[in-house]
Amino acid sequence: MRARGIDAMFVMKPANLAYLTGDSRPCALGLLTAAGRFIVAVPECDLASVRAASHATDIRSFRSEDEMFHGFREVLTELRLDEAAVGLEKNFFDAELHEVFSAHILPRATVVSATPVLSSLRMRKDAQEIELLRHAAQVADAGMDAAVKSVRAGTAETLVAAEAEYAMRKAGAEGWAAPTYVASGWRSAMAHGPATSKTIAAGEVVQVHVAPVVDGYTVDLCRTILPENAASEASADLKVYLEAQEAGIAAAAPGAPLLGIDAAMVHVLETRGYADRFLRPTFHGVGMEHEEAPIPGGHAVIHGEEQIEEVQAGMVLAIGNCGIYRQSYGVRAEDTVWISPDGPIELTRYPKNPRTR
Amino acid sequence: MRARGIDAMFVMKPANLAYLTGDSRPCALGLLTAAGRFIVAVPECDLASVRAASHATDIRSFRSEDEMFHGFREVLTELRLDEAAVGLEKNFFDAELHEVFSAHILPRATVVSATPVLSSLRMRKDAQEIELLRHAAQVADAGMDAAVKSVRAGTAETLVAAEAEYAMRKAGAEGWAAPTYVASGWRSAMAHGPATSKTIAAGEVVQVHVAPVVDGYTVDLCRTILPENAASEASADLKVYLEAQEAGIAAAAPGAPLLGIDAAMVHVLETRGYADRFLRPTFHGVGMEHEEAPIPGGHAVIHGEEQIEEVQAGMVLAIGNCGIYRQSYGVRAEDTVWISPDGPIELTRYPKNPRTR
Repeated sequence: MRARGIDAMFVMKPANLAYLTGDSRPCALGLLTAAGRFIVAVPECDLASVRAASHATDIRSFRSEDEMFHGFREVLTELRLDEAAVGLEKNFFDAELHEVFSAHILPRATVVSATPVLSSLRMRKDAQEIELLRHAAQVADAGMDAAVKSVRAGTAETLVAAEAEYAMRKAGAEGWAAPTYVASGWRSAMAHGPATSKTIAAGEVVQVHVAPVVDGYTVDLCRTILPENAASEASADLKVYLEAQEAGIAAAAPGAPLLGIDAAMVHVLETRGYADRFLRPTFHGVGMEHEEAPIPGGHAVIHGEEQIEEVQAGMVLAIGNCGIYRQSYGVRAEDTVWISPDGPIELTRYPKNPRTR
Repeated sequence: MRARGIDAMFVMKPANLAYLTGDSRPCALGLLTAAGRFIVAVPECDLASVRAASHATDIRSFRSEDEMFHGFREVLTELRLDEAAVGLEKNFFDAELHEVFSAHILPRATVVSATPVLSSLRMRKDAQEIELLRHAAQVADAGMDAAVKSVRAGTAETLVAAEAEYAMRKAGAEGWAAPTYVASGWRSAMAHGPATSKTIAAGEVVQVHVAPVVDGYTVDLCRTILPENAASEASADLKVYLEAQEAGIAAAAPGAPLLGIDAAMVHVLETRGYADRFLRPTFHGVGMEHEEAPIPGGHAVIHGEEQIEEVQAGMVLAIGNCGIYRQSYGVRAEDTVWISPDGPIELTRYPKNPRTR
């Protein structure tokens, strides 16, 4: 914070609170000072459990959202930070709340973005975090297995999601970082395919995407399930896509340019005639959130993140975010990859080319 | 829009896109003009399916988020809206994106909030919407029933969530508008209790909260499950809470003051000695989102919504959002209530006082 000239920052995003204090409940607001104080305000009824769970130095309570926000005016005065440089999570606060907050809580402060500080901390995962991500990946693999086993003609997409989520809950999932996608037939040609009541027809391609949360960490896993006697075109498309994904993963070595992952994937897709058939971004960071730093290239700005130049050991990336889209179907495979000091290691391990049974 | 002096507005929130065009996919951006044109940009691969589903007058495509945002600069010029009053969903755009968008897409326009226009439309549900909400309520009731049947000592909270979600998927749930809460024992004393791996112990109070999405609509349903031989204190607390909730629901008649619902609930709680044991808000709107207009009192500002004075026929409210919290447990019941022209009608109908079997 000192290096970036930030005197204090407000932390409200649950993933950031979890990272800094060990407690991620929603509807809490923290103020971290460069001097190392961390004041967290939580609903009054939560005081006892927060005291047990949180590393914050000072825990206060409120009885309404109103009280939560306004209470911090006095805290800022108490800490003599009324006119300080104060960071806000500008990619978490909505524009309306940001305006109200700046005008009423920080009328004389200099408001800056807290995101780069928090993202640069969270972007490089330590050994304990990798263990948690490995566990989340096992849960995702179990969910994918249940999904693949339940895909058959005549089943609704929502029932495939039911089996995937049930298996993930049984394996330890605490929730979902993104909706469970089950997109069959023409729906697999869409960029985003949360399960609907559509019935899977014989011979249809089915895309499944799961994102369980386990112990506060999440992974991304997507597979395309081809029917046993898949049209050779879908099968050929998936083969090329998996080659592209493999090339992207291989390019994710510590010290390599971050956009080299994109270049490697795109090179395969373009040279094989798929230049017009994919969408960017081809990858993104994943960990405590479904999408987090590093976010590649121009997408970083839109997500309120800094552009990162290099692949770094400790990053965890979801590689294969782009898909190949045709008029009547699409194929995609996405895996969560840990950038170990020795190179990329896939945490999600479900077979890449599942078939309808 | 004309009454509020808005020439055009950008629509990106999926619930608003769904309401206006019939198609709610994420990662789409629409521009609605006061003259009645509606230009929607979607990922290139989605073009065919959006054309089939959307009522937008003009559908364009993009191949990256970057392209999506920048493409609208030309659209604005084409429509001669560069210097117009343009609405943005300020309680959906994050502060960072709002800044980038204002600076690069709308550098010469007057940027205003689109939220009041959209919320005032969505706040009053028509007959067809009430039917969809009734269906979502049936799905929620089925989920609650499965949860209640699975609560027993020795079961993890996540396994209760597994049964609730599985039952809701089988009944038609397309997804979840909020995490499934299963909060047992001391965790029931927290304001927010998504299921964790905690094991339910004998004699513990268990709070369950479900929010399925069915056909784009969602409801709120919360119950507190008391053990068969519950400590008389928890049982007495729940009795008072249910009285307060009933009073709140009774106060939700068309034409009555909106904050009368809060006053009615709080009157019961305060006169029965619970003045320090609940949190506000006591209720909120629900429909295409888990929390939507009307948002009561000062909470409206924080949510970027207008303050609404009166209960109106067609509103759908989740009443009972506040709970009674003690040191070692909490009790709560929340129901989704349609304000019919003849008065409030509960859509969620699960029995109010379930017991562990």
